[in-house]
Amino acid sequence: MTSAEELCREVLKRITPTEEERKHVLGLAEDLMARLRAILAEEGLEAEVRLEGSLAKDTWLSGEADVDIFVRFRPEVPRKFFKTRFLELARQAAEGYEQVERYAEHPYLECLANGVRVNIVPCYAVAPGEWLSATDRTPYHTDYVRSRLDERLKGEVRLMKKFMKGIGAYGAELRVGGFSGYLCELLVLYYGGFLGALKGALRWRKGTVIDPAGYYEGREEEARELFRHHLIVVDPVDAARNAAASVRLDKMAAFVAAAREFLARPSEVFFFPSGPGPTGAEELAAQIRARGTSLLAVHVRVSGLVPDVLWGQLYRSLRGLRGMLRGEGFTVLRASAWSDERENCVLLFELESLRLPPVMKHVGPPIWVEEHSERFLAKHTVNPDLICGPYVEGDRWVVLVKRKWPDAVGLLKARLADRGGRNAGVAPLLADQVEARGFRVIEGEGIAGLCRELEGFGEWLADFLAGRPRWLARRA
Amino acid sequence: MTSAEELCREVLKRITPTEEERKHVLGLAEDLMARLRAILAEEGLEAEVRLEGSLAKDTWLSGEADVDIFVRFRPEVPRKFFKTRFLELARQAAEGYEQVERYAEHPYLECLANGVRVNIVPCYAVAPGEWLSATDRTPYHTDYVRSRLDERLKGEVRLMKKFMKGIGAYGAELRVGGFSGYLCELLVLYYGGFLGALKGALRWRKGTVIDPAGYYEGREEEARELFRHHLIVVDPVDAARNAAASVRLDKMAAFVAAAREFLARPSEVFFFPSGPGPTGAEELAAQIRARGTSLLAVHVRVSGLVPDVLWGQLYRSLRGLRGMLRGEGFTVLRASAWSDERENCVLLFELESLRLPPVMKHVGPPIWVEEHSERFLAKHTVNPDLICGPYVEGDRWVVLVKRKWPDAVGLLKARLADRGGRNAGVAPLLADQVEARGFRVIEGEGIAGLCRELEGFGEWLADFLAGRPRWLARRA
Repeated sequence: MTSAEELCREVLKRITPTEEERKHVLGLAEDLMARLRAILAEEGLEAEVRLEGSLAKDTWLSGEADVDIFVRFRPEVPRKFFKTRFLELARQAAEGYEQVERYAEHPYLECLANGVRVNIVPCYAVAPGEWLSATDRTPYHTDYVRSRLDERLKGEVRLMKKFMKGIGAYGAELRVGGFSGYLCELLVLYYGGFLGALKGALRWRKGTVIDPAGYYEGREEEARELFRHHLIVVDPVDAARNAAASVRLDKMAAFVAAAREFLARPSEVFFFPSGPGPTGAEELAAQIRARGTSLLAVHVRVSGLVPDVLWGQLYRSLRGLRGMLRGEGFTVLRASAWSDERENCVLLFELESLRLPPVMKHVGPPIWVEEHSERFLAKHTVNPDLICGPYVEGDRWVVLVKRKWPDAVGLLKARLADRGGRNAGVAPLLADQVEARGFRVIEGEGIAGLCRELEGFGEWLADFLAGRPRWLARRA
Repeated sequence: MTSAEELCREVLKRITPTEEERKHVLGLAEDLMARLRAILAEEGLEAEVRLEGSLAKDTWLSGEADVDIFVRFRPEVPRKFFKTRFLELARQAAEGYEQVERYAEHPYLECLANGVRVNIVPCYAVAPGEWLSATDRTPYHTDYVRSRLDERLKGEVRLMKKFMKGIGAYGAELRVGGFSGYLCELLVLYYGGFLGALKGALRWRKGTVIDPAGYYEGREEEARELFRHHLIVVDPVDAARNAAASVRLDKMAAFVAAAREFLARPSEVFFFPSGPGPTGAEELAAQIRARGTSLLAVHVRVSGLVPDVLWGQLYRSLRGLRGMLRGEGFTVLRASAWSDERENCVLLFELESLRLPPVMKHVGPPIWVEEHSERFLAKHTVNPDLICGPYVEGDRWVVLVKRKWPDAVGLLKARLADRGGRNAGVAPLLADQVEARGFRVIEGEGIAGLCRELEGFGEWLADFLAGRPRWLARRA
């Protein structure tokens, strides 16, 4: 077995950009920045054009360059300007490149320049703590990290990012709910390196507070009270911000588990995960058949939702529908969502069984409460679906009645057909789409057939069926 | 509809002993007491022979006389004497009658004299609060009640007792877990009559305190703290005793529900319940078949257990086995026990289904705990029954695995065959019997066949299947 240190050296060679790549990307960035500066000057607009992000900090991964160009305006510039004139000027600067306007919370222009993604983002030049927009902190983040990184640490950050990518925990976007690039940098700085950060993470628990600038020294409980999150990394640039706010509990836990696994069994697979198992429709159908559980999928077509909004809707709907199924008595083992982030979404549920026994217990009101008891008895003593009772159990009236929805497929179809499922747990914007564009409910091995229609779905389904993270080794 | 008052008058006529019956029973009691007094005098034993219970208080029901003869000894008499010489003397007095020795907590002689049950019970003549045995309070109970009852109230007590019998809530014995005769008397005295007691019960809640002697006036919370029971009726003869300690929550609740129902819809059925539905094996089998649930019975032969011990074991085993079945994933809708109190017992479970889906979710340790996590991963990454995972959910390791016991019959048989089920929730004395004498597990309509072997089982099963108390009217 290779030692972790040796392995890291090898990996680092593969993920560090070459001089040539570096020149290409930086040249492209300089060119665009020069164009922007010229256009702004022409307009008589006073603004600083800066390179930010991993390129500015030299922590980017070979083959995955992202050029983040920020334009810092004076606070007097109205917010509305960002959405209108600024985007026009940015588009002008990026003329000749493929362009997309992005609206998250903040408008910006994304374009593809010779295969490299470039973001042109407006922000305000303000003092720390006087933030006017969500991106005003970024230049401070860049300065904070750049001033503290030496050549060795840049490599350590690259290892950290690649590791997070490899285990599926990289990215603050809602789909992932993981670790941002900046958070990776903070952790490497705090622990002094990649392996140090992994070792440090083994001591993490729910409610861990990491506070590089020592804002809450001796008052950690206050930070916990303030941020109320399972992982708190106080932003050194802003004491009121948790740089780990995006990290979901399961991603935090997966990182800690992967860190422990890597330290015990170092392997390339953490950085370069092997492909999933077979992803053909036939093989997947056979797997589903042999499995013994019951799969239930809802395919919805969507449009006009940016990824963070879409994933928010998908995750909420997943929780909502799972709760609805559970409320009707079904045992939902797992639930997960897939989307191409353009027009297709699949909500997938794994159930113990699609059918439930025909009779269920219905626990009624405490007998002490006359009004409720009488209503219950009035209903159930003449209920045609009554099987047994009403009888007293403990201090409550109880009946056994015929189950209304013994079949999950029928239940799900009926609920989704009623106002897009908005009364059954589907989040409102997704319910709009379900209502407008319809839905398909697919069960069992039929779900494998979706691989033929939906690009990337097969890989995702193969991973879902296996369940085991690719980095988790079988024990001897 | 007859008014409640009118109905009570009619019922009272039927349940009040006639002069002739009274003479017969009292004559028999006097005769036995005279014999006992003579024998005790012959032995030179100083003891008071007294008539106690409902006969002494004139609150007994026609056709259901119980003669309770108490012999009060001086405190110097050793406890051991009760179990030995006393029983011999009592047997001598009851010569010519069918005799049984009873050991509950206290030894006494029961005999059948011309069709009337007679109990000859020893106790100590002690001052209140200086009790030496469980039956020393009885003469004080008799005196307390007798001194407060007039002719009208005696009738009210008879109605109360008959009502409790009719709804299955009469008796402090463990099988019933209901209201003793003395408790019925206290309630009638406290509320001034039968209908008054029913109306009073409508205000009962969990933790109700009734304190006829006012021992805890203004300190009800203390009584609640002391007795920790859902119904507290402070014994006027002993401030440290809850005269309602035997009343189970479901019996208390059933009484309150029946009281409300009777006041709204007076009917003879509360006092003279109609028979159950059809009790033939064929009809019951058909009902079970049509029902949609799954019944599972365990038949055990027992011997040498007095009823209160037997029922204690049965109820504990019922809870234990239900817990075991639930622990394995089965949904137990109801559970109940039957016994002839001689040699046959049946534990009956009603399940949603006897079979469970083949795969179950197994939630493992939090990923933070290294040792437990490693043990879990070491087991499950190579588990031949693994279906999916291990994966991280929230902050725990989880797997889907093949269910070990998808079949309730197989599970129950295996568990009972292992040391009489004592590790699976069967109470120890019953487990001894299961081990020594074996058991039968019977499922579904096969259970109806037990009617042919076990006298009285058919009626009980018919009531169990219906569930609805016989007094509960269908709403129009």
